[in-house]
Amino acid sequence: MLLHLSTWPEVERYLEHSTGLILPIGSTEQHGPTGLIGTDAICAEAIAKGVGEKTGAIVGPTINVGMALHHTAFPGTMSLQPSTLILLIKDYLTHLAQAGFTKFFFINGHGGNISPMKAAFSEVYTHLAHLNIDPEGKVTCHLANWFMCRSVYKRAQELYGDQEGSHATPSEVALTQYVYPDSIKTAPLSPEVGKGHPITTPAEFRRHYPDGRMGSNPALATPEHGQEFYQLAVEELSEGYQKFISKN
Amino acid sequence: MLLHLSTWPEVERYLEHSTGLILPIGSTEQHGPTGLIGTDAICAEAIAKGVGEKTGAIVGPTINVGMALHHTAFPGTMSLQPSTLILLIKDYLTHLAQAGFTKFFFINGHGGNISPMKAAFSEVYTHLAHLNIDPEGKVTCHLANWFMCRSVYKRAQELYGDQEGSHATPSEVALTQYVYPDSIKTAPLSPEVGKGHPITTPAEFRRHYPDGRMGSNPALATPEHGQEFYQLAVEELSEGYQKFISKN
Amino acid sequence: MLLHLSTWPEVERYLEHSTGLILPIGSTEQHGPTGLIGTDAICAEAIAKGVGEKTGAIVGPTINVGMALHHTAFPGTMSLQPSTLILLIKDYLTHLAQAGFTKFFFINGHGGNISPMKAAFSEVYTHLAHLNIDPEGKVTCHLANWFMCRSVYKRAQELYGDQEGSHATPSEVALTQYVYPDSIKTAPLSPEVGKGHPITTPAEFRRHYPDGRMGSNPALATPEHGQEFYQLAVEELSEGYQKFISKN
Amino acid sequence: MLLHLSTWPEVERYLEHSTGLILPIGSTEQHGPTGLIGTDAICAEAIAKGVGEKTGAIVGPTINVGMALHHTAFPGTMSLQPSTLILLIKDYLTHLAQAGFTKFFFINGHGGNISPMKAAFSEVYTHLAHLNIDPEGKVTCHLANWFMCRSVYKRAQELYGDQEGSHATPSEVALTQYVYPDSIKTAPLSPEVGKGHPITTPAEFRRHYPDGRMGSNPALATPEHGQEFYQLAVEELSEGYQKFISKN
Amino acid sequence: MLLHLSTWPEVERYLEHSTGLILPIGSTEQHGPTGLIGTDAICAEAIAKGVGEKTGAIVGPTINVGMALHHTAFPGTMSLQPSTLILLIKDYLTHLAQAGFTKFFFINGHGGNISPMKAAFSEVYTHLAHLNIDPEGKVTCHLANWFMCRSVYKRAQELYGDQEGSHATPSEVALTQYVYPDSIKTAPLSPEVGKGHPITTPAEFRRHYPDGRMGSNPALATPEHGQEFYQLAVEELSEGYQKFISKN
Amino acid sequence: MLLHLSTWPEVERYLEHSTGLILPIGSTEQHGPTGLIGTDAICAEAIAKGVGEKTGAIVGPTINVGMALHHTAFPGTMSLQPSTLILLIKDYLTHLAQAGFTKFFFINGHGGNISPMKAAFSEVYTHLAHLNIDPEGKVTCHLANWFMCRSVYKRAQELYGDQEGSHATPSEVALTQYVYPDSIKTAPLSPEVGKGHPITTPAEFRRHYPDGRMGSNPALATPEHGQEFYQLAVEELSEGYQKFISKN
Repeated sequence: MLLHLSTWPEVERYLEHSTGLILPIGSTEQHGPTGLIGTDAICAEAIAKGVGEKTGAIVGPTINVGMALHHTAFPGTMSLQPSTLILLIKDYLTHLAQAGFTKFFFINGHGGNISPMKAAFSEVYTHLAHLNIDPEGKVTCHLANWFMCRSVYKRAQELYGDQEGSHATPSEVALTQYVYPDSIKTAPLSPEVGKGHPITTPAEFRRHYPDGRMGSNPALATPEHGQEFYQLAVEELSEGYQKFISKN
Repeated sequence: MLLHLSTWPEVERYLEHSTGLILPIGSTEQHGPTGLIGTDAICAEAIAKGVGEKTGAIVGPTINVGMALHHTAFPGTMSLQPSTLILLIKDYLTHLAQAGFTKFFFINGHGGNISPMKAAFSEVYTHLAHLNIDPEGKVTCHLANWFMCRSVYKRAQELYGDQEGSHATPSEVALTQYVYPDSIKTAPLSPEVGKGHPITTPAEFRRHYPDGRMGSNPALATPEHGQEFYQLAVEELSEGYQKFISKN
Repeated sequence: MLLHLSTWPEVERYLEHSTGLILPIGSTEQHGPTGLIGTDAICAEAIAKGVGEKTGAIVGPTINVGMALHHTAFPGTMSLQPSTLILLIKDYLTHLAQAGFTKFFFINGHGGNISPMKAAFSEVYTHLAHLNIDPEGKVTCHLANWFMCRSVYKRAQELYGDQEGSHATPSEVALTQYVYPDSIKTAPLSPEVGKGHPITTPAEFRRHYPDGRMGSNPALATPEHGQEFYQLAVEELSEGYQKFISKN
Repeated sequence: MLLHLSTWPEVERYLEHSTGLILPIGSTEQHGPTGLIGTDAICAEAIAKGVGEKTGAIVGPTINVGMALHHTAFPGTMSLQPSTLILLIKDYLTHLAQAGFTKFFFINGHGGNISPMKAAFSEVYTHLAHLNIDPEGKVTCHLANWFMCRSVYKRAQELYGDQEGSHATPSEVALTQYVYPDSIKTAPLSPEVGKGHPITTPAEFRRHYPDGRMGSNPALATPEHGQEFYQLAVEELSEGYQKFISKN
Repeated sequence: MLLHLSTWPEVERYLEHSTGLILPIGSTEQHGPTGLIGTDAICAEAIAKGVGEKTGAIVGPTINVGMALHHTAFPGTMSLQPSTLILLIKDYLTHLAQAGFTKFFFINGHGGNISPMKAAFSEVYTHLAHLNIDPEGKVTCHLANWFMCRSVYKRAQELYGDQEGSHATPSEVALTQYVYPDSIKTAPLSPEVGKGHPITTPAEFRRHYPDGRMGSNPALATPEHGQEFYQLAVEELSEGYQKFISKN
Repeated sequence: MLLHLSTWPEVERYLEHSTGLILPIGSTEQHGPTGLIGTDAICAEAIAKGVGEKTGAIVGPTINVGMALHHTAFPGTMSLQPSTLILLIKDYLTHLAQAGFTKFFFINGHGGNISPMKAAFSEVYTHLAHLNIDPEGKVTCHLANWFMCRSVYKRAQELYGDQEGSHATPSEVALTQYVYPDSIKTAPLSPEVGKGHPITTPAEFRRHYPDGRMGSNPALATPEHGQEFYQLAVEELSEGYQKFISKN
């Protein structure tokens, strides 16, 4: 059930039996010479829809632009500042919590979102308590990173070993190929690829990772792999969601 | 050309011949008993894609959640505060302008976004000048409200007369029916419907507009109408975009 | 009754029979070679005082500096950022609402204030509800633009036709001449005047409107016209105020 | 020369021989049973105009609402938060400094503004340096509190001794009587009056100072005293302004 | 009793008989050729501990970095912006007030903190009332500047006369020598020293005060003087604290 | 070399051969019935001083209050909001970077700081580039969590096994016992202790962890263990610092 394809009376009825909500969060950032700029949002959204179908949970709109400041030396990258992302999450959850939602399950497609999202959760909890929207501290948030699912990680290792890398990875590229088979891109990829450098300033990032990849070989990706990853992530995160909302 | 389905080298090449970008902005808010909560985002996104195809412009990711504070007394509504939306737009445009984009054409699906977006544009211009990203004041933004296209407005009047109303209108509902024919909702609609009240607080809004409609009869909508509106809007906004980017 | 010329016990007594307040908002910005920099504040303040006298409403202090970022390439212009103006309005209304005021009628002299003020109203409503100052959503705001009064507009068309323009207009200049007959300025005005360009960056604004006028011929203004505009606006806005506060 | 009654070309010419600007700042707050709510703004504005006439300096628009949070338990009081006032000053000075002003002389009528204004000055200096508007650190601000002028203080002591008090003082009330002789208010004043309590929360302030006065007897004020105070302050602050702008 | 060396059950027991808390605030800024960069924090912390011992009050952690923007043209200086310091104080006091503390006694070692701290107190009071943490306005803050203690000031005049100056003073340097006798620094000090210039921009500050001293001769300091100052300040501020918390 | 015990000319000389700086960051939060509220700051500060001695690096002032919102249901806990911490770090680093520092090595004593600090680093990098303080992206930050040092972790496992837990751990308590042997606290500890619950709201945290411990048995701590942990951490982080500053 997608929030965008529901009416408010349908949401009202949903809230009678569940207060859980799934929110996909991705990013709009360079993913190397062949990866789609929307990769992280595409993956998060596709998997979130799958989890929503499997669990009957409402899936909210995708946060398409996340925290990707370190990629901004590449054209096409968009980013929020962490403090803006915190405000955005505060605004999102304030009204949803007022309406009765209490369990927010974020499905995340981008490593750079992890820190600001965790920071946001802490800030939101106190905010909702201070405004008396959640005086007893019942609202909880969970950040589920699909690319860190145990099953996904294991399969990526089997398929790609150390060519999986950590950005513009074959696993995420594969998933986008599965979702958008008409948008599979090819380009010559240098055999050497930057890896292991700490992520700091945008300029430094581009010096260390001149084509945008971080230790990865996305040429190994196939749509079939993508389907596998999709299924594994949906499976694992559906269980995760069920567990999350069953806690009181 | 969708930014999400492009690679950064493709964007780099695009920037060699154009510095224009289309960004859809919608809302996630109640649209009456039968209108989809995502109506404004769905319409803006569909039309933006159409304009992108027709003009060759890149279309960025949809801003799904806009300024809908007045709808927050209905469950399922999400909203940014105006000041958060201003920060979001500032962050979006800062990095895009650094990359070389100078013409931002927002296709908007929600009246409540107009004021904060115009406020944001003013603030962004000064911000970019102060940071020396746009020292000569070349960056310009345009907010194109599809529902205010002359052709759309005229056709809606012909089809619905004063039953068009101003929220959860048959024209926007029709467009969502065209885009998502499997998500057409029905529900009994009271013949009387609130209209003409000024929009103030969320509580007052719900008192005046108890089922969420503002003077509209969305039961008149059909997917065929939606297709018409889609085509009219794409036509008119494609011309608008061309005119916008040809100004220097 | 001017708030500045009242005592707090007088305000306390006023609140026993009315919770309405008039607040003038103007701008401090270039108005062409002959228009006063304070034009928008002068007009708003004069008319607000007139409306206050006619209706018995309290008139608060004038917001002298508004949102005029697009005029900042001309010396003497001052401006708030939209997000600062939102905070200012939030602060203003929070304490007035705590004291019991619920109907805020802003008399506005500047087009550039419209978007940020509407944005501010939305943000204020939610803020007051969240702080439990206005839990039932009774506080309402109205922005009354004197230059958009029907009677004013009509008379300006009769007197000036298309030489009215849209900034440094003869009608607003006339009104300042009526209020400050000792400060009537003259200067040679080029017969050609920029018009029709969208308002974007400060630099672009000055390129398009080199002497600050937007399509107007302020040389047509006379103090007598000003008096007429003053009377028309006071008349029309007094009715508007009465209607506004009589709504519940 | 008042900024509000000038044109931009006049400001441009002024800047050729002086970069100084006078800005009055007051407050909108209770001043006891007989003091005007606008007292602090009225005094600051009147004196600033006098100093402007005497020195030929431009006088900008009055900041009518200052930092009066501690008075907000009395109806009619308005206030900015200190952090909002800082933002306002930042916005004010940024554009004026871009236009070429470098010496900002604030004439202040309210003790509660002193701390936030000093805080604002520090923040503005760094802001202007960071934006490269004032890379060499040439912009300076001065806060001149008229009620702390030596000559004013001495005369108030002679006239009122310890009945001067520290809020709703006879000296400031006298000055408003001189400026607005038609708005002289009378009311019974209890012989005992709170004094000597530290200023903390709004509620505590009202408990300690139930009618709003702080140790003062404003019944001693006369318009003639007000004229004297006006002249003394204008004299002393005109010298202060000359000295301020002659520093390099 | 130091908060840092206590457990939460100890704090819980303390709150049963006292709701007072001492918080030292200093700065990290240049103090001339021989003064320690931590001078203001060192003095505030040492005296606060002394006051805590004498009065049995809990002493919280030292705010090491304060408002020192005007010193930032000297390497090693750190500073918060005033608006950041306001937020920090708001955060500090919000949670302490929720836990039951109501009397916050700040022992301050730096003149530059005075304005932003006073601004912060006003903002905090309203904030705590709005969040319903302190609905009756019982929370109060006091800023005690050790260097302005009458006894300290008098002794400094006796010892140093006009060589005390106003920054990098022998009195504060002496106190750090008493606390850190192993960190006594020597360097040639020019006999002439800047004095009397208003404090404005960082660049201007350094032009006027090239070695960082403001009219002072820190070579007069001795650890024995420091001990005296320490004892005088602890004595006087302990009385001040007792008086502060005994007010209701 | 401690920044607080240095003079600005000493810092100037230091910058001629190194641009590295160590900044300890801790927290002020409950650490169970026997753990000191200052535990995280005490550990970070002690280790940072040790690393400074070993490497010759300057050590800046300790950030005593970090992000501990989840502990605020226990008295004595203090916390910044994540967004305030981001602003604080921005202010800290802006002026240090202007002075020439480029390598910021934070030694962290608290898990709750990790997310907001990483968020802060991203935001700072872009901020410094935008202000042209670090146009080439040379400034880098590193967050070194002493409790995650491999050697520390290994030793804690050997000594305490699964009684190490994750908050109020015997290892951190031991380290404070080593630093403050006179402040060793004892209290009866229930044999059962909460563990494994996700960290969400303050209220929920206290429900799950009623005495503040998370799965730990701090009764196992000894000062001797503390000394070991201290030495291991200093050793490992000194190497880490050297490696960090030798990168270009």
